Amino acid sequence: MANDILTGHLGRTLPHQEVRHDDVIGAVEGTLAGFIAGRIAALDGVDPALGGFARTARDLVLAGGKRLRPTFAYWGWRGAVGAAEPVEAVLPALAALELMHAFALVHDDVMDDSATRRGHPTVHRVFAVQHERAGRRGDPVHFGRSSAILVGDLSLVWADQLLADAPLPAATLLAARTCYDRMRAEAVAGQYLDVLGEAEPGSWSIDRALRVARHKTAGYTVRHPLQFGLALAGPAGDPATSEAYDRFGTAVGEAFQLRDDLLGVYGDPAVTGKPSGDDLRTGKPTALLMLARQSATPAQLAALDRIHDPGRDTTADVDRLARVIAETGAVARVEALIRQRVAEGTAALANAPIRPDARAALTRLAVTATHRPA
Amino acid sequence: MANDILTGHLGRTLPHQEVRHDDVIGAVEGTLAGFIAGRIAALDGVDPALGGFARTARDLVLAGGKRLRPTFAYWGWRGAVGAAEPVEAVLPALAALELMHAFALVHDDVMDDSATRRGHPTVHRVFAVQHERAGRRGDPVHFGRSSAILVGDLSLVWADQLLADAPLPAATLLAARTCYDRMRAEAVAGQYLDVLGEAEPGSWSIDRALRVARHKTAGYTVRHPLQFGLALAGPAGDPATSEAYDRFGTAVGEAFQLRDDLLGVYGDPAVTGKPSGDDLRTGKPTALLMLARQSATPAQLAALDRIHDPGRDTTADVDRLARVIAETGAVARVEALIRQRVAEGTAALANAPIRPDARAALTRLAVTATHRPA
Repeated sequence: MANDILTGHLGRTLPHQEVRHDDVIGAVEGTLAGFIAGRIAALDGVDPALGGFARTARDLVLAGGKRLRPTFAYWGWRGAVGAAEPVEAVLPALAALELMHAFALVHDDVMDDSATRRGHPTVHRVFAVQHERAGRRGDPVHFGRSSAILVGDLSLVWADQLLADAPLPAATLLAARTCYDRMRAEAVAGQYLDVLGEAEPGSWSIDRALRVARHKTAGYTVRHPLQFGLALAGPAGDPATSEAYDRFGTAVGEAFQLRDDLLGVYGDPAVTGKPSGDDLRTGKPTALLMLARQSATPAQLAALDRIHDPGRDTTADVDRLARVIAETGAVARVEALIRQRVAEGTAALANAPIRPDARAALTRLAVTATHRPA
Repeated sequence: MANDILTGHLGRTLPHQEVRHDDVIGAVEGTLAGFIAGRIAALDGVDPALGGFARTARDLVLAGGKRLRPTFAYWGWRGAVGAAEPVEAVLPALAALELMHAFALVHDDVMDDSATRRGHPTVHRVFAVQHERAGRRGDPVHFGRSSAILVGDLSLVWADQLLADAPLPAATLLAARTCYDRMRAEAVAGQYLDVLGEAEPGSWSIDRALRVARHKTAGYTVRHPLQFGLALAGPAGDPATSEAYDRFGTAVGEAFQLRDDLLGVYGDPAVTGKPSGDDLRTGKPTALLMLARQSATPAQLAALDRIHDPGRDTTADVDRLARVIAETGAVARVEALIRQRVAEGTAALANAPIRPDARAALTRLAVTATHRPA
């Protein structure tokens, strides 16, 4: 069963690297590497300590990741332009989304006090270790946190600078920025609800969990990147395309968050790069947990209530909680919700006036992004 | 003497509200209030908790402050346009600088764990108290910090959205953004050096302290805001104006930071809104402290070394340290440096091809901003 939970019922038949076609990911990563190298050289010139600071941002950005936002933005753009349109002019804009994502990851990791990200120590941990090894003054944890807040801030400013590098008409850039700003505002607001949810799990509901999924993950990961890509295609967009992207993005983005809920409980640390059962340790009131509570027997509910008991033995309890959640039937219900949302998203594209290769790619992405191991 | 240190030898003869002419500050504050009210209404519609979150950002932004960045940007713009040019089109851009500044303040306060800002509890303290009063789960300090990181992030995104609201040609907006991005990148890099300086005070130097002043404060407070204003005036700018603004901004900005160093030691908490002797408590290696060490007798040096002793009795020691710094002659040297930089800045404007009222206003601002009580 574990394998089904990890990759869904379709997981084993889908090659995960399929999203990497057209070498877009490779080109995005090359753009990122070139841009960041230039920034590091400039900062080294100001003060060597600043070069070291910027290299920590680079290490996170280039350490991998699914590159979902540039991928969705690419297909959002490709769907609305001719096949001959060269990708080069939009590459800086696509890559900017990855820098913006690095900002969100670094700040999220500070808030969750996560230890690892993309298989490496998190940025705040890297700086805390540096502080300790150099025998610096003050608290290494505090220094690590302050430095990581600034690495996040730097990544966000870099994102804006890289976006401005795209050789596009000024009006097109501004239209893309409007969408990009909306994406960032929703991501921040959604993250606040996430933080609040962990502090107020008792007052949470399925509706609120799904609202977080819609405003944080769906908007941030799928819907706005698609619209951002569409904006990069220029002002002549068909309103039907925008509407189809919105419907697709909302549905597939929610499915993506629901898969994330499953991975937060059942994910393999070697694949996700995060500790196993992370969401159970933090007590995050995910839709998965809300559904489990809704269907739980009194004995199961009593077991689930222990998630908020700070004195519990984490490893044994996390395993037991994961088992109880599955026994309530919540895992099966979430899998069914994922299938339903993916079907809705795919249907929204069926009659959209977009290029057939983009429709096919987005349809594949809807499945791979929501049936993934990490 | 204290009064001289606070406001400099010119302080008592200059009315501080002189920077508020043309009602620009009032108009900027009106723009901020209107913009934020709209955002709060939208967030209230998504989830009441988000409205509350956004109100904390509003309370900080509208709690006052010197509004120096919009003021410098206004005169940078006004110096390069005709007297009849209405300010309305650039108001959102001027106000955006204040939102960006709120981002920097909130994150800085988290890093310094400051208790008060603009005479009110800092944002992370406000959220920590909310958490405690509501009897929420987890550590109130951690919740306060996470929420404040997000309030900072939200303010930064708002700044970008407000900037985009300015009804200006797309090319003008993009040129202003380039300058704005440089300003933010320098502010973040300078802040990292600040954080590092507090952790490595032993390896600091006057040169490095002045580098922080140049890259963080001078660029962020004066030089880039002036250039931002010039960019808002459109593409027909005279290169001589840009060069004069750069020289003025660098010199006056450094003087501003040097005044900040003095206020960090001798400022009146009732006026600065920060605890007295704040820089001595954190051990920040300011130019003032570096100069004091350079001129100190062995006995004075021994007293100054106690700044890095974590076990010291803060209130008594802070008073004694402040006295020792003045006795080394460093206060007088910093005052002389401030006068010299202000004179350099003012001279740079003398032959610049800018409007006379802007030259007069910037000359006055050079003095009031560097001889201020807070």
